[in-house]
Amino acid sequence: MNSNGVDEQMKLVEGAAGYVLEDVPHLSDYIHDLPTYSNPLQSNPAYSVVRQYFVDEDDTVPQKIVVHKDSPRGTHFRRAGPRQKVYFKPADVRACIVTCGGLCPGLNTVIREIVCGLHFMYGVTEVIGVDCGFRGFYSKNTVTLTPKVVSDIHKRGGTILGTSRGGHDTSKIVDNIQDREINQVYIIGGDGTQKGASAIYKEIRRRGLKVAVAGIPKTIDNDIPVIDKSFGFDTAVEEAQRAINAAHVEATSVENGIGLVKLMGRYSGFIAMYATLASRDVDCCLIPESPFYLEGKGGLYEFIAKRLRENGHMVIVTAEGAGQDLLAESIEQQDASGNKLLKDVGLWMSIKIKEHFAKEGKLDITLKYIDPTYMIRAVPANASDNVYSTLLAQSAVHGAMAGYTGFISGLVNGRHTYIPFNRITEKQNKVVITDRMWARMLSSTNQPSFINPPNGTTEATD
Amino acid sequence: MNSNGVDEQMKLVEGAAGYVLEDVPHLSDYIHDLPTYSNPLQSNPAYSVVRQYFVDEDDTVPQKIVVHKDSPRGTHFRRAGPRQKVYFKPADVRACIVTCGGLCPGLNTVIREIVCGLHFMYGVTEVIGVDCGFRGFYSKNTVTLTPKVVSDIHKRGGTILGTSRGGHDTSKIVDNIQDREINQVYIIGGDGTQKGASAIYKEIRRRGLKVAVAGIPKTIDNDIPVIDKSFGFDTAVEEAQRAINAAHVEATSVENGIGLVKLMGRYSGFIAMYATLASRDVDCCLIPESPFYLEGKGGLYEFIAKRLRENGHMVIVTAEGAGQDLLAESIEQQDASGNKLLKDVGLWMSIKIKEHFAKEGKLDITLKYIDPTYMIRAVPANASDNVYSTLLAQSAVHGAMAGYTGFISGLVNGRHTYIPFNRITEKQNKVVITDRMWARMLSSTNQPSFINPPNGTTEATD
Amino acid sequence: MNSNGVDEQMKLVEGAAGYVLEDVPHLSDYIHDLPTYSNPLQSNPAYSVVRQYFVDEDDTVPQKIVVHKDSPRGTHFRRAGPRQKVYFKPADVRACIVTCGGLCPGLNTVIREIVCGLHFMYGVTEVIGVDCGFRGFYSKNTVTLTPKVVSDIHKRGGTILGTSRGGHDTSKIVDNIQDREINQVYIIGGDGTQKGASAIYKEIRRRGLKVAVAGIPKTIDNDIPVIDKSFGFDTAVEEAQRAINAAHVEATSVENGIGLVKLMGRYSGFIAMYATLASRDVDCCLIPESPFYLEGKGGLYEFIAKRLRENGHMVIVTAEGAGQDLLAESIEQQDASGNKLLKDVGLWMSIKIKEHFAKEGKLDITLKYIDPTYMIRAVPANASDNVYSTLLAQSAVHGAMAGYTGFISGLVNGRHTYIPFNRITEKQNKVVITDRMWARMLSSTNQPSFINPPNGTTEATD
Amino acid sequence: MNSNGVDEQMKLVEGAAGYVLEDVPHLSDYIHDLPTYSNPLQSNPAYSVVRQYFVDEDDTVPQKIVVHKDSPRGTHFRRAGPRQKVYFKPADVRACIVTCGGLCPGLNTVIREIVCGLHFMYGVTEVIGVDCGFRGFYSKNTVTLTPKVVSDIHKRGGTILGTSRGGHDTSKIVDNIQDREINQVYIIGGDGTQKGASAIYKEIRRRGLKVAVAGIPKTIDNDIPVIDKSFGFDTAVEEAQRAINAAHVEATSVENGIGLVKLMGRYSGFIAMYATLASRDVDCCLIPESPFYLEGKGGLYEFIAKRLRENGHMVIVTAEGAGQDLLAESIEQQDASGNKLLKDVGLWMSIKIKEHFAKEGKLDITLKYIDPTYMIRAVPANASDNVYSTLLAQSAVHGAMAGYTGFISGLVNGRHTYIPFNRITEKQNKVVITDRMWARMLSSTNQPSFINPPNGTTEATD
Repeated sequence: MNSNGVDEQMKLVEGAAGYVLEDVPHLSDYIHDLPTYSNPLQSNPAYSVVRQYFVDEDDTVPQKIVVHKDSPRGTHFRRAGPRQKVYFKPADVRACIVTCGGLCPGLNTVIREIVCGLHFMYGVTEVIGVDCGFRGFYSKNTVTLTPKVVSDIHKRGGTILGTSRGGHDTSKIVDNIQDREINQVYIIGGDGTQKGASAIYKEIRRRGLKVAVAGIPKTIDNDIPVIDKSFGFDTAVEEAQRAINAAHVEATSVENGIGLVKLMGRYSGFIAMYATLASRDVDCCLIPESPFYLEGKGGLYEFIAKRLRENGHMVIVTAEGAGQDLLAESIEQQDASGNKLLKDVGLWMSIKIKEHFAKEGKLDITLKYIDPTYMIRAVPANASDNVYSTLLAQSAVHGAMAGYTGFISGLVNGRHTYIPFNRITEKQNKVVITDRMWARMLSSTNQPSFINPPNGTTEATD
Repeated sequence: MNSNGVDEQMKLVEGAAGYVLEDVPHLSDYIHDLPTYSNPLQSNPAYSVVRQYFVDEDDTVPQKIVVHKDSPRGTHFRRAGPRQKVYFKPADVRACIVTCGGLCPGLNTVIREIVCGLHFMYGVTEVIGVDCGFRGFYSKNTVTLTPKVVSDIHKRGGTILGTSRGGHDTSKIVDNIQDREINQVYIIGGDGTQKGASAIYKEIRRRGLKVAVAGIPKTIDNDIPVIDKSFGFDTAVEEAQRAINAAHVEATSVENGIGLVKLMGRYSGFIAMYATLASRDVDCCLIPESPFYLEGKGGLYEFIAKRLRENGHMVIVTAEGAGQDLLAESIEQQDASGNKLLKDVGLWMSIKIKEHFAKEGKLDITLKYIDPTYMIRAVPANASDNVYSTLLAQSAVHGAMAGYTGFISGLVNGRHTYIPFNRITEKQNKVVITDRMWARMLSSTNQPSFINPPNGTTEATD
Repeated sequence: MNSNGVDEQMKLVEGAAGYVLEDVPHLSDYIHDLPTYSNPLQSNPAYSVVRQYFVDEDDTVPQKIVVHKDSPRGTHFRRAGPRQKVYFKPADVRACIVTCGGLCPGLNTVIREIVCGLHFMYGVTEVIGVDCGFRGFYSKNTVTLTPKVVSDIHKRGGTILGTSRGGHDTSKIVDNIQDREINQVYIIGGDGTQKGASAIYKEIRRRGLKVAVAGIPKTIDNDIPVIDKSFGFDTAVEEAQRAINAAHVEATSVENGIGLVKLMGRYSGFIAMYATLASRDVDCCLIPESPFYLEGKGGLYEFIAKRLRENGHMVIVTAEGAGQDLLAESIEQQDASGNKLLKDVGLWMSIKIKEHFAKEGKLDITLKYIDPTYMIRAVPANASDNVYSTLLAQSAVHGAMAGYTGFISGLVNGRHTYIPFNRITEKQNKVVITDRMWARMLSSTNQPSFINPPNGTTEATD
Repeated sequence: MNSNGVDEQMKLVEGAAGYVLEDVPHLSDYIHDLPTYSNPLQSNPAYSVVRQYFVDEDDTVPQKIVVHKDSPRGTHFRRAGPRQKVYFKPADVRACIVTCGGLCPGLNTVIREIVCGLHFMYGVTEVIGVDCGFRGFYSKNTVTLTPKVVSDIHKRGGTILGTSRGGHDTSKIVDNIQDREINQVYIIGGDGTQKGASAIYKEIRRRGLKVAVAGIPKTIDNDIPVIDKSFGFDTAVEEAQRAINAAHVEATSVENGIGLVKLMGRYSGFIAMYATLASRDVDCCLIPESPFYLEGKGGLYEFIAKRLRENGHMVIVTAEGAGQDLLAESIEQQDASGNKLLKDVGLWMSIKIKEHFAKEGKLDITLKYIDPTYMIRAVPANASDNVYSTLLAQSAVHGAMAGYTGFISGLVNGRHTYIPFNRITEKQNKVVITDRMWARMLSSTNQPSFINPPNGTTEATD
């Protein structure tokens, strides 16, 4: 697979002025003489009025768009959308959809629009849902998905297919795909899931099967690299406002009131940062990317005391992954999906802050801790995420029908593209604390930068 | 004070057919020859068109209204509302407002309407706000409250006056009331607070001061007896639906999913019960009044296993005070307001349920625990609670202006009344688990009644 | 039917001290020797733990509860709830449900709880839904209603059964009831509908059929007399706040801005009045019960000019039935349900106010008109209305099972009761503008009372 | 001004491979030897930790990013953000803000963040608000804006400054700017307003004043060209869902029910199109860009009849500017801002559709018309629009401080840029009905394309 691996992961096309296209695999890369068919959209009344509906084969989208007069043009991705020719006869398609990992607003919309896109755009009628994540391939029955079944599901939170963590067993899954004669696999999940999807794609390629594998990246934390944002993120930031508002009300209704809100974000603080920017009621925002310390000069306790003296109240927002280095006692464990099982930083901070101010009668604080995590994850997508999820799903369908495989459907600089798996699984998207968005955040809260721990401790940025 | 005490607490008037009026104290009970004034509402253009605006002195409202043909008429309370004569000249009134205890939707509306009621109905311009609860009387500055200051506060959660628990020192407070020449005291708070209000009233009466003391009972738990419901309760039940919906979505999106929601209710389960009745997605509702047990036949674990087998998911709602007897290790502590510092039953149950099903690999459950407490408390009052809080505040103002004292303003069978302090402080309102509302709840969830613990343990109803 | 009519409408029981019970008809009034059965709730595990679950036959609820020491006891209604004995064997029951008239939040909850109440409390399995109102009895197919079918409908607005106005043809409907062997008829609708229900009951009685007819009064306007409030009213007042808020924002964002909101209320102004009381942003509230005039001293134009001069903006709320006498050109028409087809007072007022201030360049006003009617009617019930609708439905079920007929299920002074049809169809509930609630409203807006039209015009209160 | 005009409007820089920069004017273009100052952000603790905080002078953003391997690079815009050097000493800055035209969610956030950005980032303390639009410059007093004054305004809809249409008198405005010694002018408004801003900029340049003019384009309709989307658009689409949901409920609750919703969009149908895509309950979406016809084959009436026969109900969404050619009787009028005073297409269509189906007893339809316009415009910005409005405001502040003028702050392909006025005022952004987004919309509703009117009428696309 080694030589293969190189092909898959580096399908590069170069052009003038430093142009590079990081292309996605195609079924014809490893199966020769595949027949093609005219895209059924050509005779669809809704589309026939539209000129230039099909995407030009040469359309690509640059990853870097802040440029100089003489910048090299850099990396590009293939533009998503319907192609003139498709590699599947609609009557032959047998598609399946699986959702993995934690809940995220928009999951049901993505499911709905894969089903409806296949059905109404391409006339595909055989779509099955895999029950409860990867392990559903081999241990569960499937459900039949029709436009009628999925008609109203976008108004509900969660996933009608069910989900789970872990359960990835590549060869059992691919065996099962073969047994069920599935030839399009849509996999919705986070980076762990997309690594699994990549393994499935490689195994399918190794076996030489005509099966397209398309990923739709899902992460409420927005920690998928390359893409502009993940679906559900907007809804999550919106919903987080409720918790921050409540924390603000609690804090301002007592003397020396502190409202502490924990938001999602194991390894990246995007929700915490954007929710803070949107709210304007937050005094301190803590994220995994920006280490902080509690004691001493420039520490959190000092800042709390200062802000309470000035205003009488404060609101702290912390991402769930912030301050992990400070939880000395944290046991290193791996959960089923391979993420570290993080301790609850919110409860821990509540106790530490209360203890600190209780001892020596420093300040008579009242702290209220709010963890809205499961209330945020479970809401239905808002209008913006509904439209976004719809387009992601439709792009994935167009890509699979066109014979692309081993790709995810993602928005790059506002344009829908196909991106090879390895580009989004090899690293995580993180808040760059030396970039302007974090500076805007710091500026809005006026919190300390926590960059000079008092006695050379190791909390500083590495 | 002993003989006095009897008078205060038992101001009874008897009538025909078993009629009893439990009347409230009046300034003229202990100060003689008080002058009276014509009610300024008589010349108010808004009121002058209205016939029968003033409440007849003889109007009363029965406590018990489910009657038989020949039932004795029973206990009645004095009807609230404006009187023909008032005992304060508006220019002489100097009122103060204090809020105590936890947050509750509607607090700001009550504050706003006491200020606006005094101002617009009676022409009273001197109203001050006591900062941060009872201790604000003696340790803090006050704020001046005008209609302009309070104009928009009903759209915000919390209390603009600030609140605190405890801090009640009767004689320091009454000294302060005398020093500031306050002659109307409005006290908004729960049963602990109203006990304090009662003590203040008694001390004021002992000193023979012309100071009216009016309470507006506040408890998000609805645990005040006699009255129909407390302000903020409707809003709390409404807001609780979000958490239950989220728990339902989380539970239905995984295999053997359990959503656990903890709602307010230290000693009474009204919010849990009504939220369950309103939602219809709840499989089990646990409240302090109805003991339950975990292990064995008829226990909670058995019921969980059964429901998961049948439906694949379930939602449990627990009041914060449920199952306290089961928290064996709970340390008995007193917090500042005298409530037991209860352990978090939700976290405890989460752990117990997970442990139970993990051991011996019984069932591979996924439990999500949601504690929406501070998000519920902090929302602004909904429309229904805004109207209700307005009328409670106006009734309190009418009562104090009319010279009544030592009373709370409360709704009895849909009518606004004045109720003597002792009637609401001597016991708590609780869900009567032998009554029909609880039966309706049981019927809606089909949960076990937990009345037969396996081995003669003592959890059964006493 | 004349002599019959008296019986039906006046089933009175007298007691001591002026006690009168206005009782509801019972199947045994006109069918003799009906067998009775033990209530199946007696062996229901959920209910068996509850003492005193069954309602005492003698329990009644007084209509008037503001009393004096020696007041006569007055009119009472029979208390709702389950009886020891029922007059239907569950296996024999064949129930039907019909919804008529305009939409109202809670309709689906009432349907759901009749179905679930019959099913889970009494073991009744045959429940059918009549499609689209009264005419559905004779011109449409029915749908089978089971707990599964209705499981989630309370989360949706509207009525799953469909509705219509008019279509009432008593003998065709009763023929149909006989043909389908229906023996319990649940009719949900406003006063026109309940008049129809009364006619159906009378015809059934004339034919001597063992068919119980139960009404659940539905009117978003709250214009049903006797009962405390109709289901959906709370939700409507809540939802109206959005429109009033928007009108306030529009008005305050321009110079001389006027926000005009039309709310429901053909003949009664309850929604307008309560929405105004809840909001506190309204400067003028116009309702059908309180005539007003536009021109001259004390008229609306004068008040608008005054308020704009003082504040620079204002919000007017008008009930849809306000000012009908002023729409001189209004054509008198009858719509299918017999209501007058009222012209849109909101559009009319918008034009009149704009014209008035445009002419002679009086004031450069900007008026924005908002009609949220259909957005309010279509929302799902809030938590409070969900609980209320549930209990109304359960009471109706208990009543029909107990053999009562010709009754509606309604809340009187906070207690569920059975009320004879004629008491709610003979007149409408209206805002009493000489009563205190209207005075509170006037006091909150400081609007004119419009009682002195300039030149003896006829708009004054009769 | 002719020769000048060319300079201003065409400040072009060319580069390799077809690169063109359409640059914005700078104060130094017409005032020589301006001193520069070190950016105060350099010593701001929040920013000092951030590397590469300042924008490189050479950074630009391409307008077209779907490219081919050998595409010419095309038009670029200058990247927004803080510069190393500024052209104003903070103590010398005297800024003013004005809002013009209709309401739009986010207006208050933009105001807030200009004030806070100037204050906290640059230490500028003199900021004044112009009252009620352009005419406020010469006919009104101004208000002083401080961080404290604007602290909570982003939680309210509307604009605290007030707004108006028209009132633009260039020389009176510039006289006033000179009189008040204002040197930074921030103008928030739609395309008419930005044309006014452009005229102000030209007159300032003609007079040689050191005054920076920055526009923040505001249009709820999203009809500003070049930029990705206008602030408030997301919130508007979100809020429109309520109206569409209500229309859906009304339509499905009666036989042959039609719900008709009018949304904003005089000349462009973006809100209608996105709201339709987000909702999935819409059967037909009508926009100004896509003409339609009522009668005959392929017309709207035919489609309505067809959809009612199939489903029994339907929802129609129409942009306010749709079908204007069909309103034959429409009087051509100009309102103060120069927009055509469009007749209400929603009311007109309601009547036409009812009449059509009433005549000859075609179908007994029930149509409910909902106009949520003013309820949508008046809501506060959602979280996403709050963040977006914040960044637009900060970019404008950075640009003005850096000496740029005659520009608007706008998002291009996800990057904040400065765009010359003429690029956004010379044409309007419209839905391209030959492009894919419209095809997606048609595909989601399956509505007719209305491209073949029956008898050669003129409604077809030109």
